[in-house]
Formats: sequence, structure tokens, C-alpha cells
Amino acid sequence: MKIGIVGLGLMGGSLALDLRALGHEILGVSRQSATCEQAIAQGVVTTASTELSLLAEAEVIFLCTPLAALTATVEQLLPHLKPETILTDVGSVKVPVVEAIAPRWQNFVGGHPMAGTDKSGLAAASRHLFAGRPYVLTPIETTPESALQTVTTIVRQLNVFLHISSPQDHDRAVAWISHLPVMVSAGLIAACGQEPDAQILKLAQSIASSGFRDTSRVGGGNPELGVMMARYNRAELLRTLVAYRQQLDELMALIEQQDWETLEQYLQRTQQDRPDFLSK
Amino acid sequence: MKIGIVGLGLMGGSLALDLRALGHEILGVSRQSATCEQAIAQGVVTTASTELSLLAEAEVIFLCTPLAALTATVEQLLPHLKPETILTDVGSVKVPVVEAIAPRWQNFVGGHPMAGTDKSGLAAASRHLFAGRPYVLTPIETTPESALQTVTTIVRQLNVFLHISSPQDHDRAVAWISHLPVMVSAGLIAACGQEPDAQILKLAQSIASSGFRDTSRVGGGNPELGVMMARYNRAELLRTLVAYRQQLDELMALIEQQDWETLEQYLQRTQQDRPDFLSK
Repeated sequence: MKIGIVGLGLMGGSLALDLRALGHEILGVSRQSATCEQAIAQGVVTTASTELSLLAEAEVIFLCTPLAALTATVEQLLPHLKPETILTDVGSVKVPVVEAIAPRWQNFVGGHPMAGTDKSGLAAASRHLFAGRPYVLTPIETTPESALQTVTTIVRQLNVFLHISSPQDHDRAVAWISHLPVMVSAGLIAACGQEPDAQILKLAQSIASSGFRDTSRVGGGNPELGVMMARYNRAELLRTLVAYRQQLDELMALIEQQDWETLEQYLQRTQQDRPDFLSK
Repeated sequence: MKIGIVGLGLMGGSLALDLRALGHEILGVSRQSATCEQAIAQGVVTTASTELSLLAEAEVIFLCTPLAALTATVEQLLPHLKPETILTDVGSVKVPVVEAIAPRWQNFVGGHPMAGTDKSGLAAASRHLFAGRPYVLTPIETTPESALQTVTTIVRQLNVFLHISSPQDHDRAVAWISHLPVMVSAGLIAACGQEPDAQILKLAQSIASSGFRDTSRVGGGNPELGVMMARYNRAELLRTLVAYRQQLDELMALIEQQDWETLEQYLQRTQQDRPDFLSK
């Protein structure tokens, strides 16, 4: 199949590597000619260009630009396409993306591969980034069954755990397990910085161990990505933050009141509930 | 050197394994005779007993019982000891331990190896658990220099990063980087459980990935340990929780007000500050 990929960063590059290895013809588009040359030289794509017109013959196109650039990219892309071309994206928020693209292009299927690393850019792209990870597709009422089928078939070849959901349900779900953790974790790092005694702060930094490392990881990640989550999934994120603050208040009250029995029950429940989120 | 170890669980067993390999004679005490037999059979200790009188000849004794059992154990232990015997413990909170033991036994040096695993018990004990990890000793004014020297010498043999601090500074520091993360992380798991739509909760559980896994890890850990932290380091933990809630409120306000520029600066700071806690 002729597959187009717009944006040859970590996601686009990794998709290209896997799909090309599966025998697809990969047409890559990047705004930077250096990235195009690198992608061709490293065999990531079959061919590449800075011009979206390269994708005129593509049957399916994966939109892998940053969320903020997505709508403008689609506007420029549409004039080059045959009406049967299928578009899909890899953005981590789905309601605003689907609302922006679906009215302009019916053959669009929102998508979100739940994979990534700390790094970004084509140099960070790797084979099997998506294998064994969740991949959510978010068709809506007007999405043609054939478009969903085609994207499903391609995505399944990546050995992902496929989930189909509405864009709204997707955004609610990722607010809990992806966007809320970023804010919870960032707040932890920022709070520690509030220790007024420099000597104690230094000791804390020196003895911080795997617990702090893990709890603070996503809060110390890419700031642009964090802003993007908050910006495009604001209402859902705020909803989860309100629920989170209630839990925090409850924990603080239990500790203030020295209600160790209820605190132990609380922590028994979190110990018991956590594996439900890790059962893959 | 003749080294006694009271409590042959993860910490005591791991200490015994390393110290014995270094050529010390290890006298182990456990309340359960099955554990004593197992420790001898597996070569974890030189000899073991359920009787604290076994430690009459020990030069240094590591107290490795759970915090809640520590004071009672010391009471029972003291009548068996020569006055020059040095005691040290491995509890993760130091002020209450030092306040309880130091007035009863001058040759006591509070200690806290910052190591552990999800597991507990002698079966989880392993070599090199402490190597490359922080180990805090918390002498006070009345601690004899010779006792500190002896414990320091032994602990250094484990290839730890040794830190000397007051019990108060230790407890403040661990509140930030060890005890606060447990509550922050537990609150995250509990908050997710508040999603009222069962289908969305199920989707969230299905697509949760490494971000959720890491941020929720310590909140899904041993409930008794969490209660113990809160119970014995209550004032310091509450102090960090208040600072944390302020950060959370600030984040929520930025998102509510759509102040993306300040949010990005906030997340740039947390990205920049995190490595200071992981520089080991």
C-alpha cells in the first residue's frame, strides 16, 4: 500500500520504519529538507519531500505533526488529495482534532498510539515502538466503515492493542491516566523546590531514590507536550484535577486526624486497584 | 567483627548477606524459628536464634524490625548487652527512633539505608541491595564519636553513598522525596477510581501506559509502610502536603485561566529542576 506520513519525528519516523518493513511504500513529508534527506539515507522512507504534493498518490496518510500544526497542515494537504484518500492522525487529544478535520474530510479516522519515549525527532525513531502498546481509533457517526477498516488493518500490523472509542471517551480516559499524572508529578517537583532550608533541600536531592525518580518522571518531561495536553484537553483535565484535589484533601484530613485505620484502608484500596491499570 | 542483626526480612537479610560476604560473623535473630532455620540453611547468617540473648557477644547490632516493633525490641535486648555494644537501626524515620533509643542506650547511631524493593521478607533479601544507594546516619550531640566511626566503617563497606545529618533534617528531607510521593501517588490511583462512567474507567485502565505506571508505583505499594511514614513523620509530611496542595492549586489556576505561557514556564522549571534529585 502507498502510505504517506506527514511529520518525520519520533512518531512519524517510527511508523515509517515499521510500515516500510511490512512491505508498504512510504512517502514522507517534512518541512525540513535535511530531515527528508536523512529519512531517505537511513531507509526510513521510500521517498521524501518538503512538498505535500508528494502525497497525491497516497492511499492512507498518517498526520504526525505536533497538535498545534495539525489543522494548518491539513488545510494545505487537502487540495492535493484524491477523494478516496484516507487520513488518520496520532495526536494525544481527539475531540478538537476530530472536530477540526472530520467536517473537511470525511475519510478521516482519529488515532492515538499510546507510545513514546523521552526523546523526540527522527533520530529517536525506532522499530517496534508501538508493538504491545495500546492504539486507540476514534471514529464518529459520519466515518465511513471502509476508512475505519483500512486504518484498522494497517494499525493491527504493528501488533498494537487496538481500542475503538468515541473522541469524547478517549479524551476523558487519557485525562485520567496520561494528562493528570503529568500535573500531579510536576506539582511534586515544584513543591520540593519550596523547601526554604537550602541544606535540607540539598540533602533531599542527594538521597532521592527510585520512588522520587518514578513519581517525578512525567512531571519533568517535555514542557510543550504538557501545555498541549492542558490546552487541548482543558475541560477534562480540570475535571480530573478537581477529583484529585478531593483525594488529596481526604488524605491530608486522615493524617491530620491520625486516623491510621482509615488511612491503611485507603492505601490498601490503591494497592488493590493499581494492577487494573497495568494488566496489559 | 561480630555483627548482630535483629529482624531477618528484606533489610536485615540483605545486610546479613553483604556483611557476611565481607568476612563478618553474623548473629541473626528472628521471632520465627522457621526464618532462623532458613537463614542458616541459606548461609545468610553464621548462626541464628529466636532468643535475643544470642547477641550478648555482638559488637555492633543492626535493628531491622518494623518501626512499630523497634522500641519494644530494644527494651528486651538491652539487658543482654555489654555497655560497649553499638546499636544502629534501619528505620525510614529518625526523630522518634532516636528520641526513643538514645536516652536508653548511648552507643546508638540512627541509620537509614535508602534502598528496598516491592517485596519483603527473607526470601526477597539479596546481595548488593545497598550498593550505590544513599545511606544516612543521624548522630546527635550525645552520640560517642567512636560509635559513629564504627558504624560508618561498616556501612562504607557496603559501597553506599554515606550522608550524615541530624534526625530532624533527615525526617524533613525524606518527607519531600519519599513520604510525600507516596501520598501524591496514592491520591492519583484513588482519583482515577472516581470516574463515574464504568466504560470510560475501563478504557482508561486498558490504555494506561508507562506514565501512569511510574507515577502510581509508590502509591500502590505496601499500605503498612505508607501508614508508618505518616504516623512517625506526621508533622513533616503534613508540611510537605500543604506545600504540594499550593502547587496543585497554582497549576489548576493556570489551566483554568488558560495562561499557557506561565504553565510552560512552570513545566520548564520542573523539567530543569528534576535532574538535581537524580544526580547520583
